[in-house]
Amino acid sequence: MLGNFRYSNPTKLYFGKDSLDNLKGELSAYGANILLVYGGGSIKKNGLYEDILRILSDCGKNVAEVSGVMPNPTVEKLYEGCKAAKEHQTDLILAVGGGSVCDYAKAVSVSAYCEEDPWEKYYLRMEDVDNRIIPVGCILTMVGTGSEMNGGAVITNHESKLKIGHVFGDNVFPKFSVLNPVYTFTLPKYQMTAGFYDIMSHILEQYFSGTDDNTSDYIAEGLLKSLIHSTRIAVKDPENYEARSNIMWIATWALNTLIAQGKSTDWMVHMIGQAVGAYTDATHGMTLSAVSMAYYRYICPYGLDKFRRFAVNVWEVNPEGKTAEAVAEEGLIRMESYMRDLGLVMNLSELGVTQEMLPGISEATFFMNGGYKALTREEVLKILQESI
Amino acid sequence: MLGNFRYSNPTKLYFGKDSLDNLKGELSAYGANILLVYGGGSIKKNGLYEDILRILSDCGKNVAEVSGVMPNPTVEKLYEGCKAAKEHQTDLILAVGGGSVCDYAKAVSVSAYCEEDPWEKYYLRMEDVDNRIIPVGCILTMVGTGSEMNGGAVITNHESKLKIGHVFGDNVFPKFSVLNPVYTFTLPKYQMTAGFYDIMSHILEQYFSGTDDNTSDYIAEGLLKSLIHSTRIAVKDPENYEARSNIMWIATWALNTLIAQGKSTDWMVHMIGQAVGAYTDATHGMTLSAVSMAYYRYICPYGLDKFRRFAVNVWEVNPEGKTAEAVAEEGLIRMESYMRDLGLVMNLSELGVTQEMLPGISEATFFMNGGYKALTREEVLKILQESI
Repeated sequence: MLGNFRYSNPTKLYFGKDSLDNLKGELSAYGANILLVYGGGSIKKNGLYEDILRILSDCGKNVAEVSGVMPNPTVEKLYEGCKAAKEHQTDLILAVGGGSVCDYAKAVSVSAYCEEDPWEKYYLRMEDVDNRIIPVGCILTMVGTGSEMNGGAVITNHESKLKIGHVFGDNVFPKFSVLNPVYTFTLPKYQMTAGFYDIMSHILEQYFSGTDDNTSDYIAEGLLKSLIHSTRIAVKDPENYEARSNIMWIATWALNTLIAQGKSTDWMVHMIGQAVGAYTDATHGMTLSAVSMAYYRYICPYGLDKFRRFAVNVWEVNPEGKTAEAVAEEGLIRMESYMRDLGLVMNLSELGVTQEMLPGISEATFFMNGGYKALTREEVLKILQESI
Repeated sequence: MLGNFRYSNPTKLYFGKDSLDNLKGELSAYGANILLVYGGGSIKKNGLYEDILRILSDCGKNVAEVSGVMPNPTVEKLYEGCKAAKEHQTDLILAVGGGSVCDYAKAVSVSAYCEEDPWEKYYLRMEDVDNRIIPVGCILTMVGTGSEMNGGAVITNHESKLKIGHVFGDNVFPKFSVLNPVYTFTLPKYQMTAGFYDIMSHILEQYFSGTDDNTSDYIAEGLLKSLIHSTRIAVKDPENYEARSNIMWIATWALNTLIAQGKSTDWMVHMIGQAVGAYTDATHGMTLSAVSMAYYRYICPYGLDKFRRFAVNVWEVNPEGKTAEAVAEEGLIRMESYMRDLGLVMNLSELGVTQEMLPGISEATFFMNGGYKALTREEVLKILQESI
């Protein structure tokens, strides 16, 4: 932990089968006007919507709604949410859904009282928040993004083909989140496994950086081992509570700032994946899985020691009598095999990406330089070509 | 993660060589009256006391002091702190020191405005806090207890030979803590290594329980591996910043509630160690090391699967072709060897414990039953006899 850093994560978590029982107590801390935001309406099929409305009604709350929050929330949808939040004089935004809905709630929370275009201010110019922030609470129905305990909020602008995430400070973190693993049981397999890989990718983006000895990497390895173990069970038995609860907990800790402490971080798989997402509207986790193997094989020589350690500590490769390169490659082979077993999308063609799109996707990619290799646009194009 | 639980940890941490620079900003959130609490005065020798007083003066604060907080803070010292805190109309208690000083500050914070005897109410009867709580900030100079990011506060009553820890809720957690690894460099080796083992013991107390598959155990294994690695370096090279910073960070996460989530926990090594401490006033970490091997060998058969896993995942024992018992014992042998290498106290005689004291220590031991074996008083006596 060689650098200076600040850690603060004030989000309260209620976890378990009975976690919704705590909503009433939390609501008492806020005013009467609640803006309920959710996605395509699956919560109306499984009864959660009714349960929540009953609790809100018992607490005497006035409820307005923004529904139809899409998997990659758009800037137009953001404007709609801002308008609704202001009109309702919202005291608390209650997000019910997965990472996109939580992200959206946080984007609305900082944007509603922004005096200029929030897309310009908070996404294109990445400024700090200096206006009133509406508190957010989350009830999570899908896992993957960690949005329930962090300040991240990704918004997509289809017109300019940009998908940008702003990581806001701890005053924007959800005040509380309700995590009931049972809510995640009914998600279709494609979305479920995409979420699993999103979690893994979050951990890897933070793990593959730095040459110092850092406790954060040991915690990351623990999370990875638990994730691999539990996702192998969950993909065969989605209603295995033990596995799904572990995965839900790992997802939160994979991206709530803990394992990034004292480290630079990579995030290039996400940058490339988000550019793919802006072009195709493909499921986020699958855009990451489709480009990961080409990306990691490309950067492996630049971070060889860490890739060797990854193979040994996470994938249990026996390193005896082998070169570092051979150990590292064996780890990547095991990772690829695990990904195929999970049924993840392993190439861009399956997501509808064509050769013609690649230069545009490469152009739309943001560059970060915290990983083992600061990529050029040509290198991104090469990785995309390897991934198609 | 089979049960329901709540996670909330609002303590802000400032970490690194320059972390004290953040004190000024934090102080601005509190009123003018600061109660500075510290121990034997080592902070006056190393210049930290002067640095802090200058910052407090620059911020226009009125400072009162309670010094001489001892390694096992006594109930008489608690009463003294309560009187000082009230007389000074304290807005913030600033603790500068190790776990004992932080514990003490929290005990004073809940006790100053307690309308009856706080020892009776908060220690003997373990009641919830229902009076005014004075906010606490910590500047850490020793690592081990995790007190800088939790609600624990251990107080010793020599008259009744009781050393009791109350784990208070998140409203008693320090509001902020400053963690500068450099402050820990000057600690004498005995105290340093005792702190190292206190950290390990905290992790083990939470690890050795449960038969389910739980992500908390994977995180614990990551912390243990990083701890073993870094303490082996630090014991030879105490000013190795990389090692000391990792150890400081591990200490915090070893006991800030994270790795106990979804688990029952054991804590019997601490219960026995605290009884030894109440009889001898010996250094806390050494009371734990002196009884640990006898304790773990005794409970191993009751939690064999976990002890086998511990040997393989933490101590890198090769399990091939061996019985679970043999693998588990090999793990314990490696642990014992590591402890001896660190120079820990491995028997009670070295702490001044005599055969005659053992029945009394066994009588003074509190019983917890979250581990693999609910002990009887006779079994505790047997473990003490094995440890002498």
